[in-house]
Amino acid sequence: MTLNEHGTTMKAYVYHGAGTASWDEVPHPAMTAPTDAIVRVEATTICGTDLHILKGDLPAMTPGRIIGHEAVGTVTEIGSSVTTVHVGDRVLVSCVTSCGSCRFCHDARYGQCTGGGGWILGNEIDGTQAEFVRVPFADNSTYPAPAGVSDEELLMLADILPTAYEVGVLNGGIRPGDVVAVVGAGPIGLSAISGAKLFSPSVIIAIDMNASRLEAAKQFGADVVVNNSTEDPIAIVRELTGGLGADVAIEAVGVPETFELATELVRPVGRIANIGVHGKPATLHLERLWDRDVTITTGLVDAYSTPVLLKLLVSRHVDAKRFVTHHFALDQIAEAYDVFSRAAETGALKVVLTQQP
Amino acid sequence: MTLNEHGTTMKAYVYHGAGTASWDEVPHPAMTAPTDAIVRVEATTICGTDLHILKGDLPAMTPGRIIGHEAVGTVTEIGSSVTTVHVGDRVLVSCVTSCGSCRFCHDARYGQCTGGGGWILGNEIDGTQAEFVRVPFADNSTYPAPAGVSDEELLMLADILPTAYEVGVLNGGIRPGDVVAVVGAGPIGLSAISGAKLFSPSVIIAIDMNASRLEAAKQFGADVVVNNSTEDPIAIVRELTGGLGADVAIEAVGVPETFELATELVRPVGRIANIGVHGKPATLHLERLWDRDVTITTGLVDAYSTPVLLKLLVSRHVDAKRFVTHHFALDQIAEAYDVFSRAAETGALKVVLTQQP
Amino acid sequence: MTLNEHGTTMKAYVYHGAGTASWDEVPHPAMTAPTDAIVRVEATTICGTDLHILKGDLPAMTPGRIIGHEAVGTVTEIGSSVTTVHVGDRVLVSCVTSCGSCRFCHDARYGQCTGGGGWILGNEIDGTQAEFVRVPFADNSTYPAPAGVSDEELLMLADILPTAYEVGVLNGGIRPGDVVAVVGAGPIGLSAISGAKLFSPSVIIAIDMNASRLEAAKQFGADVVVNNSTEDPIAIVRELTGGLGADVAIEAVGVPETFELATELVRPVGRIANIGVHGKPATLHLERLWDRDVTITTGLVDAYSTPVLLKLLVSRHVDAKRFVTHHFALDQIAEAYDVFSRAAETGALKVVLTQQP
Amino acid sequence: MTLNEHGTTMKAYVYHGAGTASWDEVPHPAMTAPTDAIVRVEATTICGTDLHILKGDLPAMTPGRIIGHEAVGTVTEIGSSVTTVHVGDRVLVSCVTSCGSCRFCHDARYGQCTGGGGWILGNEIDGTQAEFVRVPFADNSTYPAPAGVSDEELLMLADILPTAYEVGVLNGGIRPGDVVAVVGAGPIGLSAISGAKLFSPSVIIAIDMNASRLEAAKQFGADVVVNNSTEDPIAIVRELTGGLGADVAIEAVGVPETFELATELVRPVGRIANIGVHGKPATLHLERLWDRDVTITTGLVDAYSTPVLLKLLVSRHVDAKRFVTHHFALDQIAEAYDVFSRAAETGALKVVLTQQP
Repeated sequence: MTLNEHGTTMKAYVYHGAGTASWDEVPHPAMTAPTDAIVRVEATTICGTDLHILKGDLPAMTPGRIIGHEAVGTVTEIGSSVTTVHVGDRVLVSCVTSCGSCRFCHDARYGQCTGGGGWILGNEIDGTQAEFVRVPFADNSTYPAPAGVSDEELLMLADILPTAYEVGVLNGGIRPGDVVAVVGAGPIGLSAISGAKLFSPSVIIAIDMNASRLEAAKQFGADVVVNNSTEDPIAIVRELTGGLGADVAIEAVGVPETFELATELVRPVGRIANIGVHGKPATLHLERLWDRDVTITTGLVDAYSTPVLLKLLVSRHVDAKRFVTHHFALDQIAEAYDVFSRAAETGALKVVLTQQP
Repeated sequence: MTLNEHGTTMKAYVYHGAGTASWDEVPHPAMTAPTDAIVRVEATTICGTDLHILKGDLPAMTPGRIIGHEAVGTVTEIGSSVTTVHVGDRVLVSCVTSCGSCRFCHDARYGQCTGGGGWILGNEIDGTQAEFVRVPFADNSTYPAPAGVSDEELLMLADILPTAYEVGVLNGGIRPGDVVAVVGAGPIGLSAISGAKLFSPSVIIAIDMNASRLEAAKQFGADVVVNNSTEDPIAIVRELTGGLGADVAIEAVGVPETFELATELVRPVGRIANIGVHGKPATLHLERLWDRDVTITTGLVDAYSTPVLLKLLVSRHVDAKRFVTHHFALDQIAEAYDVFSRAAETGALKVVLTQQP
Repeated sequence: MTLNEHGTTMKAYVYHGAGTASWDEVPHPAMTAPTDAIVRVEATTICGTDLHILKGDLPAMTPGRIIGHEAVGTVTEIGSSVTTVHVGDRVLVSCVTSCGSCRFCHDARYGQCTGGGGWILGNEIDGTQAEFVRVPFADNSTYPAPAGVSDEELLMLADILPTAYEVGVLNGGIRPGDVVAVVGAGPIGLSAISGAKLFSPSVIIAIDMNASRLEAAKQFGADVVVNNSTEDPIAIVRELTGGLGADVAIEAVGVPETFELATELVRPVGRIANIGVHGKPATLHLERLWDRDVTITTGLVDAYSTPVLLKLLVSRHVDAKRFVTHHFALDQIAEAYDVFSRAAETGALKVVLTQQP
Repeated sequence: MTLNEHGTTMKAYVYHGAGTASWDEVPHPAMTAPTDAIVRVEATTICGTDLHILKGDLPAMTPGRIIGHEAVGTVTEIGSSVTTVHVGDRVLVSCVTSCGSCRFCHDARYGQCTGGGGWILGNEIDGTQAEFVRVPFADNSTYPAPAGVSDEELLMLADILPTAYEVGVLNGGIRPGDVVAVVGAGPIGLSAISGAKLFSPSVIIAIDMNASRLEAAKQFGADVVVNNSTEDPIAIVRELTGGLGADVAIEAVGVPETFELATELVRPVGRIANIGVHGKPATLHLERLWDRDVTITTGLVDAYSTPVLLKLLVSRHVDAKRFVTHHFALDQIAEAYDVFSRAAETGALKVVLTQQP
């Protein structure tokens, strides 16, 4: 079932402990289960979480492991029980891997998989910032690329778009006519704005402290932008809503202050959808919220929306291209990390690394 | 439209500022709008919130106002636009009053009514601990009593049963087979246990620090009781659930510790339904919860479930009688407050005060 | 509370039995309940149902009654319990009148109102094709006009837009990425296409036998049009969906053939939302459908979506103007009926009749 | 991975064309894919559908194939990718087999599986009325038996209980307090009554033409029974519901008359859940139903509720034992068919065939 000959080694971006990673020669990945596939990586990208990994913040990540959990590429080998993708197929590799058989997978909560999946690529096992990657449970973790969609568009469906759509937009229960406040206008916040527009809210308000991000928010479809380093978002949202508050607030930063702001922005019977990755507890003002009928949700991406997002990519309801601000060859990965980690300066949203097919 | 002659004054339990209330002679209530009804109170009760009112904790309550927001009685007068109840009808007076026309009433969120309703009886206007009470928006705030149901059973539908059912059971989304943890086994917690059983959970776990309340929880249908002054509820729930946690946790106390416990008890993709009335903020451990897909809800009772609970009372799926532990005549109200306020000693759940029809 | 002086009579379009109606002098409407309002009609329109009324098809409609159930105008008088609109307010009069207090109104199913509302205007009581109209239950049946919206745009929210949105789009459960088939491209079908787009389906397929209606469907946003007098819609939908069928089919005609077609168009687990007004039974092919997990819904408009549609009109997510093809003065109503009844020839979608304010 | 030695042949009940089947010696099943398991059948049963198969009504069933789609037994062999069950495990074999990777499986609509699963056992491949059976996609099609549950109880979860629960109770959206009408009191109707009770409806009405089935319905929990050979179910349901109709009607027969009756029994905004297997079209009275806001669902069992039903079996909320009326040894299968096919006479609900472990 091997597509073509390959050497016994390949190049990959390997984590060597807090603060250190390098583009190393490592063994080519080997099949370990009949449900595996090997994919030749033709496009990958860097996630904000990868920066946390590099800092040593994620305990599951051990030195010697390859970083990265997003890829588009070509299947070069499949296990004996894999049936939905074939050698030679161009596929999206999702950040979430799914065993397909545990109680969480049966509820389409693949991110919570207890059967060996979840977010494991570039975290619990070797990842996608490499020439090749082994993808476990390939039947439920890779998606054949539709015709007419470029690698870099497709790559945006590996993590950022399903994360914002599922954990922000769908958990937030956005409905036509809603007033939606998005706290944070980084890549995830912008992705939430894109996703929110699929449900025709009447007003989207983007809140951030960075003027250039707010400018991006306008480009992505925000109707109102609020710089909360100088303006009062609570007052502005109340004015826009007859004093009531937003129908839905999406938290897309991950610090206590922005979460607490989100809870203040919503009207009675409103919803707060947290997307941000938090490292510290927040204060929940139950003395004000207990009788306001609010709903607060948290979530890790499950990628259950990937097939829907693929259709919306094909029908051009989702414009994935505009997230990509920088391009690099795969072996320029150290430079790509540098540009991405200085996003405030470089204006980077998503950087794409490619290996010629 | 007057049922029968009445004097110009009546007796009522009047709040006179923090710590003071008395059974006074006051003017008989007068109609103020075509949507009003006057009801002769034949049964009323005391709520935990009334104790807070007596302490002076509720800013809307001003001296000179009659306390109480639960009643069963007979309609003695109706306004010109009232059509669903008639003079002489025996009715339930709900704690929630609904204008029927604002955006929240149109969403069945009557507790959030912005048209002059919500929880106003015994809070923003004179209440039900009186011989007569004026009920605004009678068409949406009173319910004709079904045949075969006693006053004291019916009275349990004025507040406690719909509160626990809507804000605990329905917000918690309990489904057949679920493991449900109820934190707090006071009247509201017991009511949540009763309501949960309507959806056939496989296990109900009641958690409290008071042994006699846990004994009551068993009587009301808890399968497992945990005294968290001596036992570790998190460990017990995990053991019962293969390490995962409960499907649903209901907070029925209203202090930070019990809310935080509820968030620790649920499994990934679980739900936490807060019923408790909180006076202080709680800590939300987003550093542990952000990726667990939890849903947290808060709520004030809307009483939208009252018609359903009336059917379940008639069909004997809800046993309301067992909440009533003590009986008093209406003019013994000071004594009733004393017994109710010393519930730990007296074993009081709900005390009923009656006036002969 | 009267806005301005008016005479004791007015002009109105009166039904005189099957086939006959005329623009007559009739008594000015009088208040009959404290919940009533009188509205001076400044814009009204003709519905397909009005043509059925003229033919004598609706048994509730008796000779001598004024036709019409859609209006925009100015409140001239309100009853003593009316609080949400005031004399002088410019309002939308909805086709559905709601008592606000019956079990169906409490479920937001106003069209099924058992408290004296439902679709009664121009059916069970005098209607809106008149200089003035009495609107029962004004608090729940009229909506203050938002600023910046024209009378004729607003008028489209009296019936056609909420009907297609609630009974077609929302009952159909349209989701982003769906393939939606709309059977019938008359005013209601076009309205369903407009409403469907609010949820970003990937493909909308319009099916009709009339080429000019299909042309209109394209203008309103259909991605694919099928003339089922010459083409096979089932084959086309299957080809577009990998053989599976549409996610949602909306029936917008009201004859057995189109309903049966709708049931053939959907995939397993699909939904069929019937909007059409039917006069005859249809055949339900349960021998093919029993194991396909389909959901079929029927419905009368409830107008619960009116507040949302008002917001979407203001935010320009709904373009109501383009439904209006012809304009007349109110006293040219006979001519307007003639143009509207010959829609195939005249290209009429909605005709608007106006009375200067 | 083989549990124990077995011969090269076994005994099985083989279909030989319309009207003929026999207990034959056939080859022992062989593994065909890494996702397969072989199960030694220790308990199996006969379904109403098997009688249709014997008559030759199911085109997928070809002569030479083994009948049967329900079993409890012991795993004797597993494929290389099977991880959730092991050799030696006692398991439930569900009537529905699921690939776990197609769009329908990802939506938990396993009955519609397009990846090689669905209802295939005893239909498209050899079935369970045999000493051994090959079960495809074992990870998603078998369930380890919980402790404390007998084989015959467990066996009721292979088809009848999930079918009635999913397609009747859950599709019907039964809520506490509802009035539920079940048309047909055979095994599936009785199973729907059992399942409905999990949601605490206020009244369950069973309708059948057979007095002994109605007697069984009472035992299973029906509050009211109606013999529609002599009584008018529509009149009785209206009388019980103030003229409105039932909230939910479940069709559990499969002929046009009972389906049409179900549509007449429900109130406006009611739901009709069809479980019956239909061979002929029914008439849908859209001229009466178009404006009544009804929802009609059809469905094949998906078995997504099996894990929940297992919990309810363990917690004794579901009493599966009482469905079993007759017991046979596996090799007495011809006799078992005879008893089951004459259910009206023999009173058979479910017959259980066992093979000693």
